[in-house]
Amino acid sequence: MDFTEHTALDAVLASFADTPDARLRQILGAVTRHLHALVHELRPTTAEWESAIAFLTAVGHMCDDTRQEFVLLSDVLGVSMLVETMNGDARGTEGTVLGPFHMSESPRRELGDRIDEVGTGVPCVVTGTVTDPDGEAIPGAVVDVWQCDENGFYDVQRPDTQPPGNGRGLFHADDRGAFWFRGVVPTYYPIPTDGPVGRLLGASRRHPYRPAHVHVIASAPGFTTVTTHMFVADSPYLDSDAVFAVKHSLVRDFAESADAAEAARYGVPVPFRRAHFPIRLARAGRPR
Amino acid sequence: MDFTEHTALDAVLASFADTPDARLRQILGAVTRHLHALVHELRPTTAEWESAIAFLTAVGHMCDDTRQEFVLLSDVLGVSMLVETMNGDARGTEGTVLGPFHMSESPRRELGDRIDEVGTGVPCVVTGTVTDPDGEAIPGAVVDVWQCDENGFYDVQRPDTQPPGNGRGLFHADDRGAFWFRGVVPTYYPIPTDGPVGRLLGASRRHPYRPAHVHVIASAPGFTTVTTHMFVADSPYLDSDAVFAVKHSLVRDFAESADAAEAARYGVPVPFRRAHFPIRLARAGRPR
Repeated sequence: MDFTEHTALDAVLASFADTPDARLRQILGAVTRHLHALVHELRPTTAEWESAIAFLTAVGHMCDDTRQEFVLLSDVLGVSMLVETMNGDARGTEGTVLGPFHMSESPRRELGDRIDEVGTGVPCVVTGTVTDPDGEAIPGAVVDVWQCDENGFYDVQRPDTQPPGNGRGLFHADDRGAFWFRGVVPTYYPIPTDGPVGRLLGASRRHPYRPAHVHVIASAPGFTTVTTHMFVADSPYLDSDAVFAVKHSLVRDFAESADAAEAARYGVPVPFRRAHFPIRLARAGRPR
Repeated sequence: MDFTEHTALDAVLASFADTPDARLRQILGAVTRHLHALVHELRPTTAEWESAIAFLTAVGHMCDDTRQEFVLLSDVLGVSMLVETMNGDARGTEGTVLGPFHMSESPRRELGDRIDEVGTGVPCVVTGTVTDPDGEAIPGAVVDVWQCDENGFYDVQRPDTQPPGNGRGLFHADDRGAFWFRGVVPTYYPIPTDGPVGRLLGASRRHPYRPAHVHVIASAPGFTTVTTHMFVADSPYLDSDAVFAVKHSLVRDFAESADAAEAARYGVPVPFRRAHFPIRLARAGRPR
C-alpha cells in the first residue's frame, strides 16, 4: 500500500510496534502522532520544512559544554516549566525551571561562605531552612545555589571577568536544617540572544529578559528534590519572564538592611541586602 | 497569574501574539499547542525531558556539511515523506523524499555521460523523458540525479573510494525532452546508523535499510519541480523502506540486456542493465 497523507500515520506507528521497551514505544507513538498532526495542520511547503531542519540544526550547533540552546528553546516554549510543574509535589516548595546554566558540580562551600568571588556587586545575605512539610528540620539537606552577577552574567558566560564557580555554592544545612551564605544581589538579564532562539524571540517581538533570581536545588535522602528559584521582589520582568518561570510563592524581599550587629555576624558591610527562603521538601514515594 | 498546567498553553500562545509575520505566528502557535499536548499526554519525568534534550543535541552535533541527521530523523518518522506528498502535484510524476545526500551542485554532465567514475559496478543505462501532463516534451528540462554505488555508499560517505561527484549528474533534456546517461546499478543500503537516529532505530527494532534507487529532481521553468526516485524493481526492502518513500508508480525494471547494438550505441559492455523513467511535470500555479 502506497504512503499517502491518509496512510502515513498508521505506517509509521506500525514501524514502532515492536519496540521492546513499553515506555519508549508509548513515547515514539505519541511523538509520531503529534508531529503528523502538526504537519497536517500547517501543511508546510518544502521550503518551510527545510527552514525547520535548518533551525533545529542551528540550535544543535549552538550547544556546547557551557551553552544548551535546546534547553533555551524548551524554556521559551514553556515546555521546561510545564515538565517541572508536572513533576513538582504540591506538598513541598514549588519548583521552577533548571535553566541552561547549572553545573553538575557546584563548588562545595561552608555555611556562611561567600559565593561571590569578585566583590563588585551589592552585598547580600541569604538565609533559609530546609524542612519537611510539617516544619521539621532536615539536617544535612543539600542546597545547591547558582546565580548571575550584578551585570546579569553567569561565570561560564564571562570567564574573562569571573573565576569558575563564581556565584555558585553547594551547602549542607546544619543540624537545625538552616543554611546561610553571602553573595551579591543578582540582576535581571536577557537569556542569550546570539543564537537561533534569540532570533526566534526577535522574530516574534518577544523580549528576552528574566527577572532577577537565585537558582536553588534542594535535596535530602527520602525527600523529593526540588529545583526552584528565589525571585527578587523588586525586579523588572516579574510579570513577563521570557521562560515563564515565576510563581508568586517564590518571590522574596531582598530588602536593604543597616543592622550593624547582623552585618558583623555575617561578615558584610552595611548597608547590605537580606533575603530569607524557607524550603519545604515533600517526602519521596508518598501518593500525591 | 501563576504558570500552572492549566494556564501554561495560553501564557505561551499570548507571548507569540505580536509576531508580525502571520505565517510565523501560525506556525509558532501550532508548534506550541502540539508540543504542550504531547507533554500533557506523556507527562515526562525530568529525567525523560533531559533525555529528549540530550537526544536532540546529539542529532544536532551529528550534522555537518555531508551529514544531515535531522533530515534522517524527519525521514524515519515519516515526516519528510508526508511533507513531500502534500507538496506533490497529482497531475505529475509522484514525489518522494529528498534524503540527506543531495548536493546543491551536482556536476554538470552531457547526455550519455557516465555518472560512475569508478567502474566496478554492474553497467547500467538509464533513459527517460520529461513531458507535461499531456505528453508534450519539455526541451531543456533539468534532470539532477544522484545515487549510491554498488556497495550502497554515496560519494560523500566514502571519499576514500569515490571521487567527489561520483554517482551524480546534472543533465539537460534534449529538444525532444529526452535524457540518458550511463552508470552502475545502485544497491539497497542502510541509512547511517552510527548516530542517534541509528540508535533510535535499534531501540525500536527497526531495520535501517532502503531499497535500491536513483534520486531524481526534475525541473523546468513554468513547471512544478518534482523530487523523486526510480526504485529498482528487484531490490529487497521495497515493502519496508526505512524512510517510507516507496510509491508503486516509481518502481522500474532494471532488466538485464544483451542487445549488442544498443550496448554499442550507449558505449557499455554486454550484458548491461537498462531502465526507463518517463517524468511528467505539472504546470506551476494551476489550481490542483
